[in-house]
Amino acid sequence: MALIVQKFGGTSVGSLERIQAVADKVKKFRDKGDDVVVVVSAMSGETNRLIDMAKQMQVKPTARELDVLLSTGEMVTISLLAMALNECGCPARSYTGGQVAIKTNNAHNKARIEHIDVEKVQADLNAGRVVVVAGFQGIDPHGAITTLGRGGSDTTAVALAAALKADECQIYTDVDGVYTTDPRVVDNARRLPKITFEEMLEMASLGSKVLQIRSVEFAGKYNVPLRVLHSFQEGPGTLITYEENDSMEQPLISGIAFNRDEAKLTVKGVSDTPGVAYQILGPISAANIEVDMIIQNVSDDKTTDFTFTVHRNDYQQALDILEKTAAELNAREVEGDNKIAKVSIVGVGMRSHAGVASTMFEALAKEGINIQVISTSEIKVSVVIAEKYLELAVRALHSTFELDQVPGDEE
Amino acid sequence: MALIVQKFGGTSVGSLERIQAVADKVKKFRDKGDDVVVVVSAMSGETNRLIDMAKQMQVKPTARELDVLLSTGEMVTISLLAMALNECGCPARSYTGGQVAIKTNNAHNKARIEHIDVEKVQADLNAGRVVVVAGFQGIDPHGAITTLGRGGSDTTAVALAAALKADECQIYTDVDGVYTTDPRVVDNARRLPKITFEEMLEMASLGSKVLQIRSVEFAGKYNVPLRVLHSFQEGPGTLITYEENDSMEQPLISGIAFNRDEAKLTVKGVSDTPGVAYQILGPISAANIEVDMIIQNVSDDKTTDFTFTVHRNDYQQALDILEKTAAELNAREVEGDNKIAKVSIVGVGMRSHAGVASTMFEALAKEGINIQVISTSEIKVSVVIAEKYLELAVRALHSTFELDQVPGDEE
Repeated sequence: MALIVQKFGGTSVGSLERIQAVADKVKKFRDKGDDVVVVVSAMSGETNRLIDMAKQMQVKPTARELDVLLSTGEMVTISLLAMALNECGCPARSYTGGQVAIKTNNAHNKARIEHIDVEKVQADLNAGRVVVVAGFQGIDPHGAITTLGRGGSDTTAVALAAALKADECQIYTDVDGVYTTDPRVVDNARRLPKITFEEMLEMASLGSKVLQIRSVEFAGKYNVPLRVLHSFQEGPGTLITYEENDSMEQPLISGIAFNRDEAKLTVKGVSDTPGVAYQILGPISAANIEVDMIIQNVSDDKTTDFTFTVHRNDYQQALDILEKTAAELNAREVEGDNKIAKVSIVGVGMRSHAGVASTMFEALAKEGINIQVISTSEIKVSVVIAEKYLELAVRALHSTFELDQVPGDEE
Repeated sequence: MALIVQKFGGTSVGSLERIQAVADKVKKFRDKGDDVVVVVSAMSGETNRLIDMAKQMQVKPTARELDVLLSTGEMVTISLLAMALNECGCPARSYTGGQVAIKTNNAHNKARIEHIDVEKVQADLNAGRVVVVAGFQGIDPHGAITTLGRGGSDTTAVALAAALKADECQIYTDVDGVYTTDPRVVDNARRLPKITFEEMLEMASLGSKVLQIRSVEFAGKYNVPLRVLHSFQEGPGTLITYEENDSMEQPLISGIAFNRDEAKLTVKGVSDTPGVAYQILGPISAANIEVDMIIQNVSDDKTTDFTFTVHRNDYQQALDILEKTAAELNAREVEGDNKIAKVSIVGVGMRSHAGVASTMFEALAKEGINIQVISTSEIKVSVVIAEKYLELAVRALHSTFELDQVPGDEE
């Protein structure tokens, strides 16, 4: 008997039939004797429908009022799911974020959870009830409804699991786990039975959109075991947890992430003096353009080259801004390329092994793929290559690092 | 400058365009310098849509969860209206029933308001904001969401007006006021500029469905001046208030109400002994059938006849029950008629004038209309007649009591 927090996203509760299926799944855990708290999102499409209405009422909807509107999406789901559970003989009670209470700061539309009162939830669990909680929403110090931003339901689930000291937080999705890479690109991509929080963070931020980054951070911080599972298929999914001590069994590389949403910009021949990075990126950030990679190499004369990547949608705007800045800085020239892709190998195992990066570069060279930019962190190596080589590069790396093979006796 | 509570029902906020129109109307009052609290219902059709979903999840939806679901309807409207007000330069803030707080008992789906905290509302009014409150909903002592039952938004508006000591509670509807009778039956039916709470109660309970009975009772109890107005047409509407002292100006009769939703049942020749009324009506009430009129005349032998009316939908069931009861009581016979109509004249003026009832009976007799049953209260006389005479009776009475004439210098 365990205490489990289960989170079902918009697609998993996208119709009355699916809500019914979720109730049946929850009942199976109850029948085994587990205590269950269920966190649900709004039915798929509902949040967009509400935002669309808001925009018709107000050009830039008041953040406080938008949160009141959006919070209704999850309220519909929690009440319907509680009814379905009651109907199938699982006594259940629903709670809005405010009722739990999930206390947040007052940053409407992107609030942060500050504290969760678990008394009511605990009392219902003790009374043998399933507790159904609205994801994505909370209440600020003034009693106003807040929302946590897109994907906030994952955060709600993890935060509740942490506050309740749950044995596991299960995130039900439309995939059956975290894979070594995208199975649409590599046929023999393999589901990982286990992955560390750090690896998952690198995989998620690089575009493997299985989990919200914030919820993984949160789970890591409070050491909540997180499991990614398929909503409608049976299977063990992928457990995300802390690195185990016996790193002997740890594979070098856990997965290969990639991202084709980026564009690269370079300003060449700028004066290599303090403050130049700020002068270049200041106007970009002032235009609310998010920058991903930033690379500046050592310079051998008094000028340097400066490269960064932005989301492809922001490419043209960033280029216009950069050309203006370059003129002001008397830079030699500005280059841009929006036909690039970023490929990264991720794995906590590379911490203790030299040569992982060179193995990567060798594999790419063998395929005749030119590396434009390199960036590394403790547990990942990222390269930017021409977009047309993306699939080739991912397949070559997947094979080089033997990701299709089950390592040791792990499974 | 006055403090006004305005209530807009589902039809008045039935589309984004209409919510916009409500915002424009509210702005006009603000521009005049009035403080305004707006109470809104769910967009028309929304509550039925939600109930329909609930019934698909659970044969008999859990009352607590149904309230969570239904409360979302008004939350959508309050947030959209607050946005529309903010957009047109009227700073506004929305509140759910729980946020105000509108405290109710825990009778889910039909909760009663016990107390309203007005601090937040008052603070917003003082800060120059329009306050938009979700009608129909409240919060129980445990923090659970409750709803007040159909039409509860009127009650919310009146209760808020009472708690805030508002100068007037305006109920916006799809009619421009309360009429002497249904204009679809009598061409020259006249809008009443004023009517008393008691008269309104009699008119409403008799089928002039302009206002919820509960809200009229509430307004009367707390002496909140209530005004019925048209949502999209200009005009003074009808003011519902206490009887004025100078009853010289008071017309004898204010209006004629009617109802064709009833059926009549009579059991003849039952023993005229204590307890017989209970023996007859007990099984009817046990079957959850509501009884309207109950008439028992003096009997001149040891048996009596007993007549009552029920809603026409309950006619067959009531007849079956009554036949069983009649057999047990050795009654002579049972009669029923579901082709009847009830017509009532209503007016506080009849208190001080004899002869009103006989004027009514004379008018009906002149038209050859047989009266089947008579029942009276202090300010009304009701008769049951054959349904086919309904329109004829209403027109005859409207003309006899000169309801098309403006009495004295009232207007």
